[in-house]
Amino acid sequence: MGKTWATLGVDLHVEPAGSGVRKGLTEALREAVRSGRLAPGTRLPSSRSLAADLGIARNTVAESYADLVAEGWLTARQGSGTRVAERSVVPPAREAAPPRREPAGPAWDLVPGRPDLASFPRAAWLKAARRALTRAPHEALGYGDPRGRPELRTALAGYLSRARGVRADPERIVVCSGFSDGLTLLGTVLRRRGLRSVAVESYGLDVHWNLLHRSGLRTTPLPFDALGTDTRDLAGARAVLLTPAHQFPMGEPLHPDRRAAVVAWARRTGGLVLDDDYDGEFRYDRQPVGALQGLDPDHVVHLGTASKSLAPALRLGWLVLPPSLVDEVVSLKGEGGWSTGALDQLTLAEFITSGAYDRHVRSARLRYRRRRDALVAALATRAPDVHATGIAAGLHAVLRLPPGTEAAVVQAAAFQSLAVHGLSRHRHPDAVVPHPDALVVGYGTPPDHAWSGALDALCRALP
Amino acid sequence: MGKTWATLGVDLHVEPAGSGVRKGLTEALREAVRSGRLAPGTRLPSSRSLAADLGIARNTVAESYADLVAEGWLTARQGSGTRVAERSVVPPAREAAPPRREPAGPAWDLVPGRPDLASFPRAAWLKAARRALTRAPHEALGYGDPRGRPELRTALAGYLSRARGVRADPERIVVCSGFSDGLTLLGTVLRRRGLRSVAVESYGLDVHWNLLHRSGLRTTPLPFDALGTDTRDLAGARAVLLTPAHQFPMGEPLHPDRRAAVVAWARRTGGLVLDDDYDGEFRYDRQPVGALQGLDPDHVVHLGTASKSLAPALRLGWLVLPPSLVDEVVSLKGEGGWSTGALDQLTLAEFITSGAYDRHVRSARLRYRRRRDALVAALATRAPDVHATGIAAGLHAVLRLPPGTEAAVVQAAAFQSLAVHGLSRHRHPDAVVPHPDALVVGYGTPPDHAWSGALDALCRALP
Repeated sequence: MGKTWATLGVDLHVEPAGSGVRKGLTEALREAVRSGRLAPGTRLPSSRSLAADLGIARNTVAESYADLVAEGWLTARQGSGTRVAERSVVPPAREAAPPRREPAGPAWDLVPGRPDLASFPRAAWLKAARRALTRAPHEALGYGDPRGRPELRTALAGYLSRARGVRADPERIVVCSGFSDGLTLLGTVLRRRGLRSVAVESYGLDVHWNLLHRSGLRTTPLPFDALGTDTRDLAGARAVLLTPAHQFPMGEPLHPDRRAAVVAWARRTGGLVLDDDYDGEFRYDRQPVGALQGLDPDHVVHLGTASKSLAPALRLGWLVLPPSLVDEVVSLKGEGGWSTGALDQLTLAEFITSGAYDRHVRSARLRYRRRRDALVAALATRAPDVHATGIAAGLHAVLRLPPGTEAAVVQAAAFQSLAVHGLSRHRHPDAVVPHPDALVVGYGTPPDHAWSGALDALCRALP
Repeated sequence: MGKTWATLGVDLHVEPAGSGVRKGLTEALREAVRSGRLAPGTRLPSSRSLAADLGIARNTVAESYADLVAEGWLTARQGSGTRVAERSVVPPAREAAPPRREPAGPAWDLVPGRPDLASFPRAAWLKAARRALTRAPHEALGYGDPRGRPELRTALAGYLSRARGVRADPERIVVCSGFSDGLTLLGTVLRRRGLRSVAVESYGLDVHWNLLHRSGLRTTPLPFDALGTDTRDLAGARAVLLTPAHQFPMGEPLHPDRRAAVVAWARRTGGLVLDDDYDGEFRYDRQPVGALQGLDPDHVVHLGTASKSLAPALRLGWLVLPPSLVDEVVSLKGEGGWSTGALDQLTLAEFITSGAYDRHVRSARLRYRRRRDALVAALATRAPDVHATGIAAGLHAVLRLPPGTEAAVVQAAAFQSLAVHGLSRHRHPDAVVPHPDALVVGYGTPPDHAWSGALDALCRALP
């Protein structure tokens, strides 16, 4: 326990332990000055007399005074002794804002965009972390290559080629801090190349559009029909952002003709296709459609992320770049000092090469597939007017609603304490396509124990 | 082992295992199309006849064709069968650039700015990682608060207050991806507030100046004299970036009068001081000078980092912000999707609260202190004309050289296969202060086993 000395007209609470005395005295004096209990201009007793007062060594007091002079709390002038500095009183600290409390959230969460966080493979991840950090060379702990760790780029090149048909070369992969970082890098490079806008899909994520806007680019939505985004006429676009394997949120893969059309456009015009392959691993009815990048690695950037397959908190994503873009992206990442924590990169590399990633994806695929099946079955019996559209894939489904009912259903869901998105919030503000009423249901979001409750709440909210 | 079928005029190498046949066939066909071995327009055999050829089920072939149609490699038209798509031949892939090989580095490295990576406490870090990930709530694995994990902000608030005299409140701390990310955030906010330039020190790091330039700000160097950076006349500046505890690279703490002057300026004008406390923990002769932020948390931003105390690869830094800046910085970080991996944040929080951080800093302090002492002793006997200046602190020392010798000494060091910086490379291009000849020696950089060799090479290079 500390001891409280009343001296200098103020109480100084100081630890009595030997080596702690000086530090304790310094802190106590600093706090007394800071709080205004020792007023500016106050002359402090000589170190000798305060030391006698406190029963401690004179040197201790002198050193403590010196510390506080160096920090600017006290001044020491020849002939005028040690005084509380004139400028050292801080205006009464404004009370910090009270911690922001989120309003109590809804009981059930079917908002799309997040995997089931409860199924993150913690033990396997820790095992990979231990192996990775144990083996890592010392230089891996330094500032490092802006492209990311070579171990991870090599592991990704093998995995993406095998699982997604991506033509990947570790030298053309740039690891980034999640998809957002990657899209920001690309947007900045495109803006520097003189682009003013990027073509996007009529339905998508406003956060992605906003990232491009932040880079100084406009986003212009493309038409959308039964074959998916219409890539036949890209007008003056020089770059286009697509979700070809599983349109977000509509849930269909891009029709082969449209895939071919966009690649042909890119070759003809030198345009660039950004292939957002956010959930390409999760297809339940058949092998996933290969990534668009495989069709033309010279004109397609593959953007991938661990946010859906593992967890957003890792903040790990990757770009597989056409050769012509590598230098610009890497130098931009380097000049920004933007780099991505290496320990998680090393861990993910080990996680992939050990086979743990495949095992996790398989088990997640099974979990989400069961949920999707349960959703479809529940709709059939409890809401026969509502149909899940889109392919059996991913972490979300679009439920088509009777015309004119979307807002009412979202409202009814809120009354059931269920968070879910209406399709309209994923519609680009400039889109001119028909606007069906629908819900976007993120069935991947809840933990297992909450899934059936969330599904039940959803059914109660449906017409 | 796989089996190679010669069919369609090309060799298809396919795994024979049951569930792998379809995947193998798809990959083999895709590769054959991709490489041009199956030419555009080629009509493929019917699924029935290829299946008979290969001795596999017809459905397997049909599904494989369907996959490749969906991916755009093949086309299937009513009446014309399945053909290789016209647009699917990729121009012969440009050879990837050969892996960039760094030229063989120098044998000895005394470049400042990095701690001894070999002494990173791997075992203790892994232990903390295990405890942190085991305890973390599921929501910690999601996208998270742009300010960073509350566990880390709470741990930092306690640590910084105790060790650095920072007035910290978890609500005013923003965790960022290293110092660079923090400085970029602040630069962007200042630019949005209408600032056009930031005052900086005459000596510093060009990467920091460049980060500010990237945010659209100029940097204007302040005069520098025996008391440190002259903060008495900041002219029209509205913000200033300083290293008050240990000027980088000069190595002196900012004189108390100058500390007081800059705080007085900030209060008078509403200016902002950015307190870059990069190595504040490493003082060897006495208690470190408290962080400048303690003098006026309403006008000083404290910038800290784990890059010197632990390892740059963690990419963890933090801002302690005045209340008036919090909302702007947090919303900027949020809108950019800039967030920092949560697992290392949770681990650092556990590392701090368990006391492992203090233990590591103590042991690192001892290691670096010994190196500094060895450096000073070696200079005294082997290069008596050269003196280490600056306080006994940090990871680097400035060695004053006889006038006119700096370039020759850096050159001589290169001949000894020793990397070391001349002071001139840390001088702001617009600085108008005298320019002493000196070396900046990063004695923290080498691993223990290389330290004496590096020191020896340095002594050989000195006049």
